Amino acid sequence: MSILVVGSVGLDSVQTPAGSRVRTLGGACTYFATAASLYDRVHIVAVVGSDFPQEHLDFLRGRNIDLRGLQIVEGKTFFWAGRYSEDLDICETLETQLNVFADFHPVVPEDLRAAEYVFLANIDPELQIEVLQQMRAPKLTALDSMNYWIASKREALTRALGMVDVVLLNQKEVKQFAGESNLLAAARRILELGPRALVVKKGEHGAMLFTRGKELELGLFLAPAYPVEPVVDPTGAGDTFAAGFMGYLARDGRLSLEALRRAVIHGTVVASFTVQDFSVDRLRTLTLTEIQERYDALRYLTYFESLSPAESQVFGEPLGA
Amino acid sequence: MSILVVGSVGLDSVQTPAGSRVRTLGGACTYFATAASLYDRVHIVAVVGSDFPQEHLDFLRGRNIDLRGLQIVEGKTFFWAGRYSEDLDICETLETQLNVFADFHPVVPEDLRAAEYVFLANIDPELQIEVLQQMRAPKLTALDSMNYWIASKREALTRALGMVDVVLLNQKEVKQFAGESNLLAAARRILELGPRALVVKKGEHGAMLFTRGKELELGLFLAPAYPVEPVVDPTGAGDTFAAGFMGYLARDGRLSLEALRRAVIHGTVVASFTVQDFSVDRLRTLTLTEIQERYDALRYLTYFESLSPAESQVFGEPLGA
Repeated sequence: MSILVVGSVGLDSVQTPAGSRVRTLGGACTYFATAASLYDRVHIVAVVGSDFPQEHLDFLRGRNIDLRGLQIVEGKTFFWAGRYSEDLDICETLETQLNVFADFHPVVPEDLRAAEYVFLANIDPELQIEVLQQMRAPKLTALDSMNYWIASKREALTRALGMVDVVLLNQKEVKQFAGESNLLAAARRILELGPRALVVKKGEHGAMLFTRGKELELGLFLAPAYPVEPVVDPTGAGDTFAAGFMGYLARDGRLSLEALRRAVIHGTVVASFTVQDFSVDRLRTLTLTEIQERYDALRYLTYFESLSPAESQVFGEPLGA
Repeated sequence: MSILVVGSVGLDSVQTPAGSRVRTLGGACTYFATAASLYDRVHIVAVVGSDFPQEHLDFLRGRNIDLRGLQIVEGKTFFWAGRYSEDLDICETLETQLNVFADFHPVVPEDLRAAEYVFLANIDPELQIEVLQQMRAPKLTALDSMNYWIASKREALTRALGMVDVVLLNQKEVKQFAGESNLLAAARRILELGPRALVVKKGEHGAMLFTRGKELELGLFLAPAYPVEPVVDPTGAGDTFAAGFMGYLARDGRLSLEALRRAVIHGTVVASFTVQDFSVDRLRTLTLTEIQERYDALRYLTYFESLSPAESQVFGEPLGA
């Protein structure tokens, strides 16, 4: 049954120090599905308008992506325009047109309600909950969100956080949601709401995986970013991080601590490719072999001692529930 | 012959969200020597005024630190006052009184000129060069610097960078010196000036070790920070990072890539203790056993696969020259 994703499919106009693109293929669901389809079959639940270019539909369909859950309705497709700062760490939203997304309610096709891996990309948490309520007994659910929903739909987001297994947020969002400037304390507060794991995305500074382990070493994993130069366009880095993360877990089938750690590295690697070109362009040609190469490289880049047999054991620990 | 350090010994008034301290023991040389003395004997080359409290002299002398190179001259001791922002990532200097430091010229006592490990803490690069010129044939030299010298003494700093084996700078300083916003490109530019290794300190985001390897994996090591809460006072984190780094290398005796990587982890760990209290207070009771505990924890916190024999080999590679 593989991976089901709900989120935005849209058109983006983006400006970065490396250049700009006008009305290019974008949207969190698009980025996620394009990357995750490298690992497994992906089912999209989303909406586009009647103006959505046929070439984009053809592209997605050509990539092991099932579009039966993609509603195509009369009207204009979701549009976002943004501009990144010189050092890429600030993104200013210039325009957001919800268009057909404004009245969207996700409908999961009957035969997809048994999907095992469910990713709720960054959309209104009420819609995320609608999707969860349609699913039968998913093996792993995960969600992403953003500052906008933390501020405007806090109650719904809090409920959604309590309904999923894994939460993926960036560092600022974790602190904002928890109202706590220390990241460790903030992460703990989110785990207390119910999820079994929290992935804190830190962009060029890597990612942290928090699980409910008894000891710090068992409950925390620190992953660096894979260093790339130049970064062309950071858009979609978070969505494709989630894709590498969920894609690896779906393909691997296990949910051990070790699998989660490796999934974080897969997320790290996939995101590192995404930012090397505009839109989903780098992902069009990306292969699992290239992903494996950077995965292996990250071992060389981070290890400073070989593991003892006792340490290797730790990776076998079950995910704290 | 152990470790020789030149730098500031002074008094600090510091304000952080956790509290404040007035005219407490400070200075880069002080932080470095206090921490490095856990690993090996440390020789200080510095200056204080006649007002420098006897209790501080007694403290340093009691810690395997040799003060024969510490000039005590008529006048007032170097004084710095600073205030950290709420999330600790900005430090505003409120006051700097050079006092007796204004006319300081370092004199390395004759029998210390054969010291094997030399650390040039953050001072005027012309003084750093004066020290290097007094040394006979050190096994490893390293320097730290800051934005002030990059802007005001660029030429002297460039010369100093070309004379040492290892450069330790923070991320902003590396980009500022290189005039380059991409960190990889900036790091390469500094290595081209002569040093064999560059350690980029990123505070809560860890550290990167660049060496002149042929491949990325051989030329780069990524270390996370050891996560602590709460951070009480970041002052001295960089100086004690250098102390853990140099201290480990001096104690270990090797200069392999593997030793350098482990030294970065020691730096990471020592800095993580430093920031948990004001001034050098946490270092007063810190032991090598506690350092080893966090060192071991960092393996659990960062590993995601056990090493293959082939990967283990890589750590044996000599430091690229």
